[in-house]
Amino acid sequence: MADPIRIIPLGGLGEVGKNMMVVEYGDDIVVIDAGLMFPKEDMHGVDLVLPDMTYLIENKDRVRAVLITHGHEDHVGALPFLLRDINVPVYAPPLARDLVDVKLRENTGVGKYDLREVQPGETVVFGGITAEFFRVCHSIPDACGIAIHTDAGVIVHSGDFKIDHTPIDGHPTELHRLAELGKAGVLLLLSDSTYAENPGFTPSEQIVSDALDITIGRAEGRVMVATFASLISRVQQIADAAVAHGRSIAFAGRSMINNTNMAIAKGYLKIPAGKILSIDELAKLPPEQQVIVLTGAQGEPLAMLARVARRHSRDIQVDDGDTVILSASTIPGNETKVSDVINNLTRQGAKVITRRQANVHVQGHASQEELKLMLNLIKPKYFVPIHGEYRMLNAHADLAETMGVEPENINVLEDGDVLEIYGDSAEVVDHLPAGHVFVDGLRLWNVGSAVLRDRRHLARDGFVVVALTLDEDTGGLVGEPEIASSGFIDMVESEVLVDDAIALVGDALRAATKLPLQEDYINGRVRDVLGSFLFKQTGRRPMIVTLLLDM
Amino acid sequence: MADPIRIIPLGGLGEVGKNMMVVEYGDDIVVIDAGLMFPKEDMHGVDLVLPDMTYLIENKDRVRAVLITHGHEDHVGALPFLLRDINVPVYAPPLARDLVDVKLRENTGVGKYDLREVQPGETVVFGGITAEFFRVCHSIPDACGIAIHTDAGVIVHSGDFKIDHTPIDGHPTELHRLAELGKAGVLLLLSDSTYAENPGFTPSEQIVSDALDITIGRAEGRVMVATFASLISRVQQIADAAVAHGRSIAFAGRSMINNTNMAIAKGYLKIPAGKILSIDELAKLPPEQQVIVLTGAQGEPLAMLARVARRHSRDIQVDDGDTVILSASTIPGNETKVSDVINNLTRQGAKVITRRQANVHVQGHASQEELKLMLNLIKPKYFVPIHGEYRMLNAHADLAETMGVEPENINVLEDGDVLEIYGDSAEVVDHLPAGHVFVDGLRLWNVGSAVLRDRRHLARDGFVVVALTLDEDTGGLVGEPEIASSGFIDMVESEVLVDDAIALVGDALRAATKLPLQEDYINGRVRDVLGSFLFKQTGRRPMIVTLLLDM
Repeated sequence: MADPIRIIPLGGLGEVGKNMMVVEYGDDIVVIDAGLMFPKEDMHGVDLVLPDMTYLIENKDRVRAVLITHGHEDHVGALPFLLRDINVPVYAPPLARDLVDVKLRENTGVGKYDLREVQPGETVVFGGITAEFFRVCHSIPDACGIAIHTDAGVIVHSGDFKIDHTPIDGHPTELHRLAELGKAGVLLLLSDSTYAENPGFTPSEQIVSDALDITIGRAEGRVMVATFASLISRVQQIADAAVAHGRSIAFAGRSMINNTNMAIAKGYLKIPAGKILSIDELAKLPPEQQVIVLTGAQGEPLAMLARVARRHSRDIQVDDGDTVILSASTIPGNETKVSDVINNLTRQGAKVITRRQANVHVQGHASQEELKLMLNLIKPKYFVPIHGEYRMLNAHADLAETMGVEPENINVLEDGDVLEIYGDSAEVVDHLPAGHVFVDGLRLWNVGSAVLRDRRHLARDGFVVVALTLDEDTGGLVGEPEIASSGFIDMVESEVLVDDAIALVGDALRAATKLPLQEDYINGRVRDVLGSFLFKQTGRRPMIVTLLLDM
Repeated sequence: MADPIRIIPLGGLGEVGKNMMVVEYGDDIVVIDAGLMFPKEDMHGVDLVLPDMTYLIENKDRVRAVLITHGHEDHVGALPFLLRDINVPVYAPPLARDLVDVKLRENTGVGKYDLREVQPGETVVFGGITAEFFRVCHSIPDACGIAIHTDAGVIVHSGDFKIDHTPIDGHPTELHRLAELGKAGVLLLLSDSTYAENPGFTPSEQIVSDALDITIGRAEGRVMVATFASLISRVQQIADAAVAHGRSIAFAGRSMINNTNMAIAKGYLKIPAGKILSIDELAKLPPEQQVIVLTGAQGEPLAMLARVARRHSRDIQVDDGDTVILSASTIPGNETKVSDVINNLTRQGAKVITRRQANVHVQGHASQEELKLMLNLIKPKYFVPIHGEYRMLNAHADLAETMGVEPENINVLEDGDVLEIYGDSAEVVDHLPAGHVFVDGLRLWNVGSAVLRDRRHLARDGFVVVALTLDEDTGGLVGEPEIASSGFIDMVESEVLVDDAIALVGDALRAATKLPLQEDYINGRVRDVLGSFLFKQTGRRPMIVTLLLDM
């Protein structure tokens, strides 16, 4: 019997972000993408979320390469962390290569790295695995899907894709190659599910060009456009509209400036030289000749747009008559932040244009009819929906069934599942650890759930700390306990409560007959007595911490 | 010169929820609605948010009544708190009266109260103010707007409204009365802005009936429908569809059970008696004869649907083939919670139907064309948009201008603004305190921003507490400090860090030459030395608290 192909998603299934797919054949492992996720609201204090890459580290001798489909953070953001432990070559299409290069240079923890450019259409051989990069459309230039050729069959990984017949960069999804692959026979299709719940076709970027042209053309004052810093083709569309209406352009926000600088230098972004100014230079022009492209379309509190909205920017102030365009969709969870930004901008006299008022954004992911087209062209024997929450994966699985994939050949996987595929069977044979790894602060702390659980408790109820001194000889309480608290109630205004609490704890410990007092006993007693007293008085259950000092 | 009319919004302007509008004429004050708001994500630990009612308490001798437009929490939820301080009569339309009655009975803090029923169309006189309740459509029966008649002119308050020509309860918005009022001359219109950004017409509830009928009719297994417990007319629609397809109905979730019990007893809800069962009785029927109506359509973690989704409900378990309908729109801020619920239900084999798949919900608020109709019928001299975030108020103001209201007669107010209206002028003459009052725990704590700020800090970085003992005689440090922490990093795994921190603090304090050590000096020194050490080591800035014990 021939070797099976093994597919192990380590991220991106069941949750949007931190995409990472392991493909194994024989002794060879290739990893497709190494992305990160931004923390959810209840991941207090966590800066970034990474996939659990333990399996790769344990099998590092067999890992031949990381293959990058495109340059978005949710596909490349974990690379600096992965490469610290496994120094393997990284293959990426041109723009992704350049973006990863910027990222790895910034990251001092990564030593020498081996980053190689792949042109769409090229193939690279890794032992028994041949990886073929094919071009797809997405909201960033040079996005690719990857076909994995093995003796056991062909696997097609769609990458993030949509089917745009009139993309901004003139490079549509390579339908002909997909058709050839499908005709020759594909064992397994892994396909992007992000918009699998969306009926119809995702509109072409062309309608965004039109909407930006109309909106910027009609604006009477200054125009600001907020979008993602990696949305290089969107920046091109904004610049085209600006130039067409006699306006100059400035960029604001660190990542926007860095990315556009690189993109201009490398030729991804084509703007007449005299039309790009610094913020200060732009400010000298009349408002109707200004366009500012800036970060912060998700309402991120530290990004440029939110700072402008809160009047915290030194360089940019909103004037009456300004038009602000949010050229992005709101990522679930960010709705209230975005709404706050819009309210603050409106309050300062700006006219705010979102997707609701004009087609100033379309998503980069395929809707149902495009997903069906992909399924129809590839005609895979087996199907695994990737990239999406469970509801999206499930909707995609339903689509595949309507497209004629046998129900028993459709596997809705979860991160960590090991799918083993022979020519005539595919089954989950194992489940690897595939939870979240948190980046918290400077270093890669592996913040356990206890720390996060404590933060949630502290967020809700604050804490009360009780410090006690024990007598060296008797082991009994000396003097009165001291109490401090934060995030609980206003203790200054609750002096009586504090005095009562001190007396209560003191009495409880003095009443203990068995000396010396043991630490566990003290902790338990303080928690019981103080906890129930405070709950009765305030209806809250602060965290209670006891500190013992020896005399 | 005649007395002016004074309009003071104390809630609901600039933020959705906690609606409260003060209307003053001469010596008489009436309050329209007394609502609450549910806390936002960053209001850690806060249970409820109330309007600041200080002005009413200070002027309680002049407050004649609270007039309730309808029975939703954001219009009646603050009543138990207001009535503790001001015992004035409350006037409400029938269903609102009954819902308020349930609420006030439950609330032990409220003494004897004076709650009176008003039929739509009735007027009530309060000194120089005559209040006329007129019927509007909204997502609850018996919703009203209120016309305030004074010698200085008429004010029309729309309440929450939409214009539904085919409402479930058969009572459309009283367009004829609005036309009469408009023809006779209205000084000021206060009108609902919640959907002022929405073009077109809000669809009739009729399309929801159709969608529920089709969805429930097609379902093969059990059906669960989640909606708001106060959406009595939606429950009627669900019950109608259930009965039409030979299914029986059970209710789940405390507030759903309480409200539907009351609504059945009072005749608001009409369901054939034998068709209503307990959850246990329903479970004995075949799945295709079951419909469960339950709470939790917002993904609220403690409500019924989320408990079912997490498999935490004793009474209800999801089976393969169940259909779950979310008959509600997602309130901004709840998107990820709702999505988690859908993912979990899907994972257990349920088919989940939201607004995305079928018209199983329409909003209860007027869209732009209805708002224009209201403006056109009333033809007010002055206009103040109410109920909405700033962006919505602003959009509504723009609409009023296109409808011919003079721009200088449109006032976009914020909570606390005092608008004084004479026959030929309207201006903001004062601004009263109108911030948030938090209900936090058992009692009405007035949680200051310091407590909330501390909770935000603790949520992000946790805390480190240092306890020290000072020598009674010299005032110098005795022994070594003790350190504890929570929500920061795993201290057990960071023993070296703790030891270094203790040594560092000890050394710093022993190095001080000026004895006795002063409290301020110690606090500052510990914060500086320990704070920068921990930041350098971990990249985080935990809250640092120092506790001093005397020997």
